[in-house]
Amino acid sequence: MTRLALIGVGLIGGSAALAFKRAEKVESVAGFDADPAACAEALARGVIDRAAGSVADAVRAADLVLLAVPVGATTAVLAEVAAAVPAHAVITDVGSTKRSVIDAAQAVLNAHSSFSFRRFVPGHPIAGGERPGVAHADADLFRGKLFVSTPVAETHADALAKVEALWRAVGANVQRMDADEHDRIFAAISHLPHLLAFALVAQIAAEPDGSRKLGFAGAGFRDFTRIAASSPVMWRDIALANRDALGAELRGYRGMLDRLQQALEAGDAAALEDVFARAAQARRAQQRGFDGE
Amino acid sequence: MTRLALIGVGLIGGSAALAFKRAEKVESVAGFDADPAACAEALARGVIDRAAGSVADAVRAADLVLLAVPVGATTAVLAEVAAAVPAHAVITDVGSTKRSVIDAAQAVLNAHSSFSFRRFVPGHPIAGGERPGVAHADADLFRGKLFVSTPVAETHADALAKVEALWRAVGANVQRMDADEHDRIFAAISHLPHLLAFALVAQIAAEPDGSRKLGFAGAGFRDFTRIAASSPVMWRDIALANRDALGAELRGYRGMLDRLQQALEAGDAAALEDVFARAAQARRAQQRGFDGE
Repeated sequence: MTRLALIGVGLIGGSAALAFKRAEKVESVAGFDADPAACAEALARGVIDRAAGSVADAVRAADLVLLAVPVGATTAVLAEVAAAVPAHAVITDVGSTKRSVIDAAQAVLNAHSSFSFRRFVPGHPIAGGERPGVAHADADLFRGKLFVSTPVAETHADALAKVEALWRAVGANVQRMDADEHDRIFAAISHLPHLLAFALVAQIAAEPDGSRKLGFAGAGFRDFTRIAASSPVMWRDIALANRDALGAELRGYRGMLDRLQQALEAGDAAALEDVFARAAQARRAQQRGFDGE
Repeated sequence: MTRLALIGVGLIGGSAALAFKRAEKVESVAGFDADPAACAEALARGVIDRAAGSVADAVRAADLVLLAVPVGATTAVLAEVAAAVPAHAVITDVGSTKRSVIDAAQAVLNAHSSFSFRRFVPGHPIAGGERPGVAHADADLFRGKLFVSTPVAETHADALAKVEALWRAVGANVQRMDADEHDRIFAAISHLPHLLAFALVAQIAAEPDGSRKLGFAGAGFRDFTRIAASSPVMWRDIALANRDALGAELRGYRGMLDRLQQALEAGDAAALEDVFARAAQARRAQQRGFDGE
């Protein structure tokens, strides 16, 4: 059986701990979070079995370490992990960007001869909720969802197999992908939409009659901006960690908006309808895919 | 009792007809749609009681006319209505833009001495669904939703009262508003989000690996782009009918994206977090408002 150290006790890490325990893939969970209140709540809810006083304390007797911190914290946290974790352990993560995490892990772990970069398995469970925090942890969060693993050439096959088996055991569909492709895909379908939703709510809220406008919002606006309630720190880190791919998607999108503004001002009905119709067709095809899941 | 003529047999018009009948505010519904299949389906579902062969045929014996057509069709349809409708009737609409509809109604009706512009009541029920068409008509669609009436100085008080009573009877909360303010508010919280969602899906779908990217979309993307499955023709019309207010919102939003791209490229974590945090705060406050509804 496996002793898990959970570093970062939030919605994703907490849900993973609950799910791994229920699937009997881990026997005990030591948790650490920079916010002691999160650890206390996790302990009270049975998400972790022990609240560790430090990263080193959490990982010292671990067979498996799950990093569930904002991706910008990876380097600092992994340095603490590497200094104390047993050499036989496996370290994995849940970060929404993979190239930045792999680069950080490679730099940190190659500087610590006691732990091999080959035993670090980069991963990304595609699940979440607009309500952050361990209070909303849910052992079923990953059921039927995708888990993307992005091993590199150095990644040890046994470590990779162990991590993928863990996510399969909690109901996730495991798919391997190149880290750079992962980052390009999620820049388009996750990171850019988050940035756009944040931007829209911030923009309207800053208008003189912003509160009045927001007061009239209906279901469409509610759905469109649900992701704008997400953690600002987590998404700041994701945006910066994936700035090349996200920047390229944002540039393309701004070009699209430039063309739509021109069409609007020119009263070009055909140009507007063309863009809207191509989008509606693609979105409806996608919905049929969702419905058929 | 009231004989209703429904011009435009889709989700909104069909739902209104069902709701008005169930509330016993109308005794019969004659429907006309440019698409005969929509009329046939509405007849089969009991949404309308008679499929009229023309606009004139539908309105000839009506006490109340409900226009539920894309706003760009208002002038042409209203000219046909005005040529045949009894002088005692009331005409109202459900268009998502109000200044353009009022201007069209004023121009058309003042050219037809047989029907007074004073008996036209501009309105907008704030309800919808991503599944268009009379097949999804629902008598409960307006329950607990907002109905905005935007009367002008000329609007006859009795006609206004009759229309507002109708919407109240089907569970809507009626609120009066100046037409220009209506258009500014809905430019920000409805028309711009639709344009942005259409733009995002069109942009990704046009990329070489667009289909692959869309295949990985999760719940966040699904919510964010749900409105991109809406009717392209309807939204083309709304965008053009409200181009001044929508154009101003879009310009402001593009300025926001310019600043976010700069912050991303400069690695300016504080600037990104500031925008994201202001958005998350406003969106969470709004959610508490929804939850407390």
